[in-house]
Amino acid sequence: MSSNVMPLPVVQFVQRPSIVELGWGHPDPSLLPVEMMRRATEAALSRHGSDALQYGSIPGPGPLLEWLQARIAGQESRAPGTEELMVTAGASWALDAILSVVTDPGDTILVESPTYHLALRILQDRRLRLVPAPADADGLVVEVLEERVAALRREGRRPKALYTIPTFANPTGACLAEGRRRRLIELAAAEGLLILEDDVYRDLAYDGAAPPSLWSMAPPGVVARLGSFSKCLAPGLRLGWLTAGPDLVGQITGGGLLDSCGGINHYTALVVSAVCEGGDLDRQAERLREAYRPRREALCDALRGALPEGCRFEQPGGGFFVWISLPPGVDSEKLLPRAEAEGVSFLPGTRFHIDGGGRESLRLAFTLYPEAELVRAAALLAGAIRSHMRDRRSG
Amino acid sequence: MSSNVMPLPVVQFVQRPSIVELGWGHPDPSLLPVEMMRRATEAALSRHGSDALQYGSIPGPGPLLEWLQARIAGQESRAPGTEELMVTAGASWALDAILSVVTDPGDTILVESPTYHLALRILQDRRLRLVPAPADADGLVVEVLEERVAALRREGRRPKALYTIPTFANPTGACLAEGRRRRLIELAAAEGLLILEDDVYRDLAYDGAAPPSLWSMAPPGVVARLGSFSKCLAPGLRLGWLTAGPDLVGQITGGGLLDSCGGINHYTALVVSAVCEGGDLDRQAERLREAYRPRREALCDALRGALPEGCRFEQPGGGFFVWISLPPGVDSEKLLPRAEAEGVSFLPGTRFHIDGGGRESLRLAFTLYPEAELVRAAALLAGAIRSHMRDRRSG
Repeated sequence: MSSNVMPLPVVQFVQRPSIVELGWGHPDPSLLPVEMMRRATEAALSRHGSDALQYGSIPGPGPLLEWLQARIAGQESRAPGTEELMVTAGASWALDAILSVVTDPGDTILVESPTYHLALRILQDRRLRLVPAPADADGLVVEVLEERVAALRREGRRPKALYTIPTFANPTGACLAEGRRRRLIELAAAEGLLILEDDVYRDLAYDGAAPPSLWSMAPPGVVARLGSFSKCLAPGLRLGWLTAGPDLVGQITGGGLLDSCGGINHYTALVVSAVCEGGDLDRQAERLREAYRPRREALCDALRGALPEGCRFEQPGGGFFVWISLPPGVDSEKLLPRAEAEGVSFLPGTRFHIDGGGRESLRLAFTLYPEAELVRAAALLAGAIRSHMRDRRSG
Repeated sequence: MSSNVMPLPVVQFVQRPSIVELGWGHPDPSLLPVEMMRRATEAALSRHGSDALQYGSIPGPGPLLEWLQARIAGQESRAPGTEELMVTAGASWALDAILSVVTDPGDTILVESPTYHLALRILQDRRLRLVPAPADADGLVVEVLEERVAALRREGRRPKALYTIPTFANPTGACLAEGRRRRLIELAAAEGLLILEDDVYRDLAYDGAAPPSLWSMAPPGVVARLGSFSKCLAPGLRLGWLTAGPDLVGQITGGGLLDSCGGINHYTALVVSAVCEGGDLDRQAERLREAYRPRREALCDALRGALPEGCRFEQPGGGFFVWISLPPGVDSEKLLPRAEAEGVSFLPGTRFHIDGGGRESLRLAFTLYPEAELVRAAALLAGAIRSHMRDRRSG
């Protein structure tokens, strides 16, 4: 038997005493749709009975695929055909599944920089050679990307894919400008570069609709777009979807793992299908936008009022995060222990880079706490930055 | 929009008209625990609330891990420590996850032969070099395995792992004899060979308790044992567990994918935890044993009465399958179209081999249909074999 005396944890998040944990990009538990899941389970089991518990159809259960097709058709300029769509066990699983069929160890992959630190870990676990492509406030700088691709080609390396979050990026909140979207797609089509579009924040747009996805703008096969129910419904479900070219979808659905599994998360997919069909998904997304929009504003307003001169940030139009550029010389790794001592935490910018960049930046998530806590956290962070700067000058 | 007029399928299984589909190793839908899942969802959401929907603890939610520890302690000679256990998204996912941390493309892996055909596909997708190790009615022939390992060593190849189903094997139903279990573990320990013990049929033992798992008999780190809720509860859940050495568990739980996901199938794991804790899992396993035991007997009795001379099979002590050796010269691939024309299907033995072996054998599953259908199917199969043999003689 286990020698533990403490019960083992249920969830991943660990709230430390007296720290506002702005490092975690997790949703506020009080907003998670417990009652919806109860209703949807009842609906799914009543409608599908034992079909909900049997080996599921490999691309995902029909009702969810059909709902996704209709929803995408309503939101975007094209809908995926049945061979361009599959249900996944979340965007991270989908990324890993795509890498398993598209890459070999040692292959070169371009990654937006900064980008989601745990996607970098998934890529690194596949032993890929990652080449950063810088992003600014308008997202990926496509001209620099072009130069990188050309430089790689001169070395005899052909990058197989680009990982990017063009819409409400993690960690910066930035959206790729529309002209850059077009230019990026042209480049990728010309170079045979597969764009891995991580598109999980689309439903959390706070200032009007999100920009069109790269997938919707591109010729078939150029973009694999990772969708997720984690941000607009609940992350513990481990459920998402993929829109991509028929070849790529077919390679994943035709592989041994899914032949053995059937649908990768079948039961949950049918329950979520009931959430979607009854309109609860759209209600939940709206509820989250209504909750997170004022949090974003409260945090950004408080930061604008409190941060010392030399700090910069853009208020994001959606998503979970605010990305702060610190004054020159202020190293966020060194700032972190002081900030935590004052009662606020964040993730240092270096986590989102593979080249040691990002020292003078940090990421805050505004989703986990109500406005008052965010305002308090902004003041604590500003105080920590000021103290740190004062110590550096006198040190 | 999709051009489909037919709704997309919900489940993987396709019932063809007028064929008893004994090729599919799927459970009988009428035995799947719809009401249990309803009750368990209610219990899990009442107890855990939003924790059921948040990012889950990476090794799996505490309540399920603790239940598994206690259950394994009650059934086996040792219980896994907390660092030797994790919740998985099913045995197939676990196999793939282990391969991702243990192997590189080109590595040599030994596979029991015959073995689960879709595990072979998962292994092949990783571009591993598979070397068959023959099994007989007492499971893997360990002396031959020793010879294979020695022969590989002479070629400078060190096999990294052995994939085996020692208890109620798919496709043969065989159990590895206890002496062979000990000898296999000694060999693996001496050679640094990781045993991948696929142990998903353990709860479906029809003639008394299943033999001890290799994992329970071996020193820590020698065996990674794949458990599953697919056979004793429901396959659509995509949920299982892994007992293995702390290093291997730590490599999987410490990887980028789970860092990003949290628990790999968190919500379902908490619902299943409620199934387990209330005693429903044991009730469901008992219900399945009570249902499948007479099916096994009905099929085996009918086969004994009907099959032509030269056919052989062993009545399995558990699991899903009966493995039939056909008379010399009867090729099951050629038999299949005739059998389907007569109204019964099976999987040819070649599917379970990587070396072209198994031509004169076939697998039947006795789980999907009630006794009367199995009896009818046995007669149809016997008739097809007789016709096929007659045609060969006269052809």
